[in-house]
Amino acid sequence: MTTMTTPFRTRRRVEFVDTDTAGIVHFSNFFRYMEAAEVDFLQSLGLSVSMQTADGRWIGFPRVSATCDYIKPAKFLDIVEVVVKVEKIGGKSVTYEFDFEKQGELIARGRITAVCCMTTPDHKLESLEIPADIRRKLQGE
Amino acid sequence: MTTMTTPFRTRRRVEFVDTDTAGIVHFSNFFRYMEAAEVDFLQSLGLSVSMQTADGRWIGFPRVSATCDYIKPAKFLDIVEVVVKVEKIGGKSVTYEFDFEKQGELIARGRITAVCCMTTPDHKLESLEIPADIRRKLQGE
Amino acid sequence: MTTMTTPFRTRRRVEFVDTDTAGIVHFSNFFRYMEAAEVDFLQSLGLSVSMQTADGRWIGFPRVSATCDYIKPAKFLDIVEVVVKVEKIGGKSVTYEFDFEKQGELIARGRITAVCCMTTPDHKLESLEIPADIRRKLQGE
Amino acid sequence: MTTMTTPFRTRRRVEFVDTDTAGIVHFSNFFRYMEAAEVDFLQSLGLSVSMQTADGRWIGFPRVSATCDYIKPAKFLDIVEVVVKVEKIGGKSVTYEFDFEKQGELIARGRITAVCCMTTPDHKLESLEIPADIRRKLQGE
Repeated sequence: MTTMTTPFRTRRRVEFVDTDTAGIVHFSNFFRYMEAAEVDFLQSLGLSVSMQTADGRWIGFPRVSATCDYIKPAKFLDIVEVVVKVEKIGGKSVTYEFDFEKQGELIARGRITAVCCMTTPDHKLESLEIPADIRRKLQGE
Repeated sequence: MTTMTTPFRTRRRVEFVDTDTAGIVHFSNFFRYMEAAEVDFLQSLGLSVSMQTADGRWIGFPRVSATCDYIKPAKFLDIVEVVVKVEKIGGKSVTYEFDFEKQGELIARGRITAVCCMTTPDHKLESLEIPADIRRKLQGE
Repeated sequence: MTTMTTPFRTRRRVEFVDTDTAGIVHFSNFFRYMEAAEVDFLQSLGLSVSMQTADGRWIGFPRVSATCDYIKPAKFLDIVEVVVKVEKIGGKSVTYEFDFEKQGELIARGRITAVCCMTTPDHKLESLEIPADIRRKLQGE
Repeated sequence: MTTMTTPFRTRRRVEFVDTDTAGIVHFSNFFRYMEAAEVDFLQSLGLSVSMQTADGRWIGFPRVSATCDYIKPAKFLDIVEVVVKVEKIGGKSVTYEFDFEKQGELIARGRITAVCCMTTPDHKLESLEIPADIRRKLQGE
């Protein structure tokens, strides 16, 4: 189901360690930025990427897919605005879209699909239906 | 033009810093692995991701797109085999496919599209046609 | 000369990618945290780790020494408070001390010594006396 | 007790992501290099930074201290030789020294002190005496 959630906005400063010899943010770091923006978004809903259920088990959202298109570079000390949208919620998965903006201009667009999983102490993962209360929050209801 | 290059294989060990609280390689680190495998591949052809031309200018291959699908997790000390294929060479761009294998089993598949660019000392980038000698090597000729 | 600067405080959230299989922030990431706190501190003074002088040259502060003692672990989503002090200003170098606190408790203490350098487009570095205006700001005058 | 272990040597290539806008390896990445060299060293002795004991418990070596002095920079594609020495073995801790060399020249020197700990599934740590067999191997006996 495609949702109509109002976009969530967060921002971050580009750190020196994020850049490379080309003087720009290394392409891999946009995925770190997505993760942090996802956490910001989930926290704004009272959720987390890793949550303990009432019966003591852990629910997490490991990623099954991640992608990013790079349009313009970002540099050290740039303030990057990240717009997070829930693009799609399936039975067990959720897809986020991330627009990276610098001074109002789109510089990159990413997408992450995460699957709802039960995690066990020995790090085994088992996918499950997204619990109803989490689903409602993700849908902005 | 799609090429028929024989796949190039390289390998790396999962380091502790690559993993996260879930006990698996953080999804963003597969993009670091791709970059290192790309360098291994380019070096096997006598190329690099950053090369100085005869007239002193620098040619680089900044990424315009990167994607990864995650199938099974990798853990600390796992040996991950990376199979690099040149999937497509356009006029100015090249797309690599990366298969990540653990003990012969596919655990992730990534793709990076890079554009041939002239880099200047002030970090400006200008795309250009992939020089003929580089193109031939990428095509496995 | 030892300075009496009032400590500067900044904070950051532990991201998932910062943690490792042990479920705690990887020890190397405290150095990333120090760098970001240093930038926060310098920006609070109107400075930066990389600054262009009036005559177009770049002054930077590459590190010559970094150290960290780890007392208690930090985990995903922890809010870590970083207290930055200018411990010492020499002719060409400055030493910062970083206290990492979690809910008021000291969890790590780091130190970075950086040397004032002129950077050139070809990435050569040449040390120089810390300019008087920068020195005054670092001393909290 | 100070040991006389013959130095262990390992090497690594500087990756693009390891570098920063200054065109050199970011200072924090030397700690990643130390960790990988420590693993190489431990593996050469049949050990690991995380080992399961006969009774199913995990022994790890979390760091209590890490330091690095930077002498010369390393750049993308540099081959860095890392010389690992066991500098000191205490009752519960071990201190490694890491010399980083580029073409035979010392470019950085690091030191890590790690404490032998029992790790539990809930990520609690409890220090313990280094087991005799591990101690013997670390001492090069």
